[in-house]
Amino acid sequence: MKTIIMTYKRKNALSVSRDENFAEWYLAAISGADLAENSGVRGCIVIKPYGYAIWERIQNIIDKKIKELGHLNCYFPMFIPVDLFEKEAIHVAGFAKEMAIVTHTKLEMKDGKMVPTSALETPLVVRPTSEMIVGESFARWIKSYRNLPILINQWCNIVRWEMRTRMFLRSSEFLWQEGHTAHETSEEALQEASIMHDVYHWFMRDVLKMFAIAGEKPNHEKFPGAEKTFSIELMMQDGKALQAATSHYLGTGFARAANIKFQGRDGAEKYVYTTSWGMTTRLIGAVVMSHGDDDGINLPSAIAPYHVVIVPIVKNGEYADEIVAYCDKIKNSCPVNVRVMIDKKDYSPQHKKWDYVRKGVPFICEIGKKEIADEQVVYTKRADNLQKVSVSLVEFAEKIEYELDCHDDLLQQKNNNICKQKMISDVSSFDEMLEIFRDHNNVFVLGKIFVDSDGNITEEVIKLLQENNLSIRCFPTEQIDTVDRCIFSDREASVDAIIAKAY
Amino acid sequence: MKTIIMTYKRKNALSVSRDENFAEWYLAAISGADLAENSGVRGCIVIKPYGYAIWERIQNIIDKKIKELGHLNCYFPMFIPVDLFEKEAIHVAGFAKEMAIVTHTKLEMKDGKMVPTSALETPLVVRPTSEMIVGESFARWIKSYRNLPILINQWCNIVRWEMRTRMFLRSSEFLWQEGHTAHETSEEALQEASIMHDVYHWFMRDVLKMFAIAGEKPNHEKFPGAEKTFSIELMMQDGKALQAATSHYLGTGFARAANIKFQGRDGAEKYVYTTSWGMTTRLIGAVVMSHGDDDGINLPSAIAPYHVVIVPIVKNGEYADEIVAYCDKIKNSCPVNVRVMIDKKDYSPQHKKWDYVRKGVPFICEIGKKEIADEQVVYTKRADNLQKVSVSLVEFAEKIEYELDCHDDLLQQKNNNICKQKMISDVSSFDEMLEIFRDHNNVFVLGKIFVDSDGNITEEVIKLLQENNLSIRCFPTEQIDTVDRCIFSDREASVDAIIAKAY
Repeated sequence: MKTIIMTYKRKNALSVSRDENFAEWYLAAISGADLAENSGVRGCIVIKPYGYAIWERIQNIIDKKIKELGHLNCYFPMFIPVDLFEKEAIHVAGFAKEMAIVTHTKLEMKDGKMVPTSALETPLVVRPTSEMIVGESFARWIKSYRNLPILINQWCNIVRWEMRTRMFLRSSEFLWQEGHTAHETSEEALQEASIMHDVYHWFMRDVLKMFAIAGEKPNHEKFPGAEKTFSIELMMQDGKALQAATSHYLGTGFARAANIKFQGRDGAEKYVYTTSWGMTTRLIGAVVMSHGDDDGINLPSAIAPYHVVIVPIVKNGEYADEIVAYCDKIKNSCPVNVRVMIDKKDYSPQHKKWDYVRKGVPFICEIGKKEIADEQVVYTKRADNLQKVSVSLVEFAEKIEYELDCHDDLLQQKNNNICKQKMISDVSSFDEMLEIFRDHNNVFVLGKIFVDSDGNITEEVIKLLQENNLSIRCFPTEQIDTVDRCIFSDREASVDAIIAKAY
Repeated sequence: MKTIIMTYKRKNALSVSRDENFAEWYLAAISGADLAENSGVRGCIVIKPYGYAIWERIQNIIDKKIKELGHLNCYFPMFIPVDLFEKEAIHVAGFAKEMAIVTHTKLEMKDGKMVPTSALETPLVVRPTSEMIVGESFARWIKSYRNLPILINQWCNIVRWEMRTRMFLRSSEFLWQEGHTAHETSEEALQEASIMHDVYHWFMRDVLKMFAIAGEKPNHEKFPGAEKTFSIELMMQDGKALQAATSHYLGTGFARAANIKFQGRDGAEKYVYTTSWGMTTRLIGAVVMSHGDDDGINLPSAIAPYHVVIVPIVKNGEYADEIVAYCDKIKNSCPVNVRVMIDKKDYSPQHKKWDYVRKGVPFICEIGKKEIADEQVVYTKRADNLQKVSVSLVEFAEKIEYELDCHDDLLQQKNNNICKQKMISDVSSFDEMLEIFRDHNNVFVLGKIFVDSDGNITEEVIKLLQENNLSIRCFPTEQIDTVDRCIFSDREASVDAIIAKAY
């Protein structure tokens, strides 16, 4: 293998670097990769073909896993009558601030303006989540223990009327998968929530190669109505946390609200135990902010629409047929599960190449007359500092799968290096912590927190955190078995918590 | 192969036959197969796991085809600001009657009732179709002929506030795919609409084995704003028509409304030509009404969640392990693309068997101790009058794919037999036609219609049809090259039309 020193054309990369302004860089990276754009509706984005292709790969992997675990897909109505919301007060309190409500079913032109008419008697809420409408069905479906467990999932759109929106991370409408299950026992339901939590952790860490911490939410951060909420907290390159997937153990709360009862093995009537769990298009934003660099996004191979893009380099139309034929040969030499695309479009090779750099294609081949003569493949390794290498066609085809693994390892390693430096675990007081946030910009602080016998954190601490725009992201699953001083007080504390600023 | 005469337990089939009451039979068939149920929201259904599994198979086949033809999936916002609707008056007139409109973004509890608050300045329409919001993006994406064609598709939910709803056929919310394309020339756009029309025809006729007529809509039945609408008209077993998929050539009408211009090869600025085409969950209802019989639904193999279901017959727990092991052996003997499920659930074999009859599983195996001894497989052919046959395991595994083809052929043949009898082509006057509809119940009348030089049918004829609850379904693609008397007048007419009652 021959390594070529590459002339690095800075002008072709993104217009702003991560260090200059992370928030602007994020938008530039999305736009540079052509993932999405804003629409005319506040907070609603158009997911463009390249962004959607990534989502489809995420869906395929998760859908397969969900089905392997015995869940069945189905589809529930998007509209929830407002009176259903009157039943589950705690749950509703958590969502009532941010919902789209349908009140009319007709438009009429009046003085050149479209005006809603035909008011509905019972207004309809566009689902902010589907526990309540699923609960109605569960109540119809479940009669006896023989009907349990019920394990279902749906892929759909969701609306939460967010005030401050940010592409992919927080949009008024987004896409997700939401699983809903009902069980005979509390243990079984807890296990279900835990299994899905593990699936999400596996996916974020082992498939998407992100810095992912599995843990449980403190009581005051739980899903409205949940008894336990497990979450995956990702650390973005700027040290801020992103909640990337949640699994909720709902106990019998929703079953009581929707009256979901079953006849148990002992003949007695009981409420079912339910769970719900979900993962959204926010994940696309997480990948951008975990693996992106100043030249654009980087994609782990599992979700990259293309692993290899081949750019034919034809000068003045010379050897055009031969070059395209050789590009086809390269494509056909690769194993079938390697996704190869030849870009024959009418743009300059340089334009195309930088386009794919911004799009995070793992390997970008530039193939001209010279490569045919030598039976060589020249390609740029996107994640490896755009290193350009030249290998024989045979070697390329033989090693491409191994190279994809290396690409993934490299992404993980780079992300880990950045994130591990921002994990601070020797904080002894709240003031010291605030100082760290000032000095280091954003970090994940891992420290001991006092939690009372009900699992609650004192109101005082919650307030203190809020005032400083911080939050307890989770109690990580991997706890360190020691007793230390609580960060917030002089009390002894044994529970580890992660404190961070969050998106 | 040994044919066993089966005792036909009528009590296990549906509670109502097609002849007794087709509309009630349809609902009983859906409920018997557990495809869907009504929800608490008027006109919105819950698509249950078995129904959704059928939809997923439809999606897979169509999505693959759409992608092979070069289209890319993406996702557009569900909300369309009402002011966009002021731009495309003709289009809007066709939808304004039946839309869900979001006017508020907050709920507040007042006197124990949830009340919408925080009114939006510009109300939002939940998409009844996405031409207008896609047009906004196209206007941003398209600058030059080099950007053309643009070929996109999305899978999403759609809302049309229907007054009379019917499961799958007409619901307030439904699922569909909608393709949207933009082209340099009129010819190219027309060809695109025509290619997708062919895809739909192939799918309905050759894959789903339904009686499908490809044709073009008369002007007064076109999609609002379209220049040409192609449709697939299916005949249901009761002789009524179901419009199952449409492709629209939109000319430059939508491009003008959304200002989608490009610089042509000659440097001049022009409007693009657009198309749109779609297919919905209505198709599930079409399959029920095309292939269902008095025992339940029948599924063509391409969309059947299971091809073979094996029901173990264990009496008093005897030989339970051996029987299950033999069921596994049968499953493992089948080719991988044959979808086999063993139902080990805790219900009686008879209960399970009739459940799968109602669910339209092509082959239902009943396997007990006796079958092991003989290495036999006893199975019921769902579509072949529930004929029960017994074959050797080897023969079963070898012939199962062939048997699935026979199953499909049989469905097609049965449906064709029913439908061809209801195709009437020798009608010479409108009165005779009305008489036929009275005598035969519903039919498809194929006859000559006078169409003026602009392609219009006279207002008088349109009125006459409406009064009798009839409509011109399409001008079939396969026209008979003769001149005859128009059904409605004494004029000479050369255009064939299909007239029917429609769902």
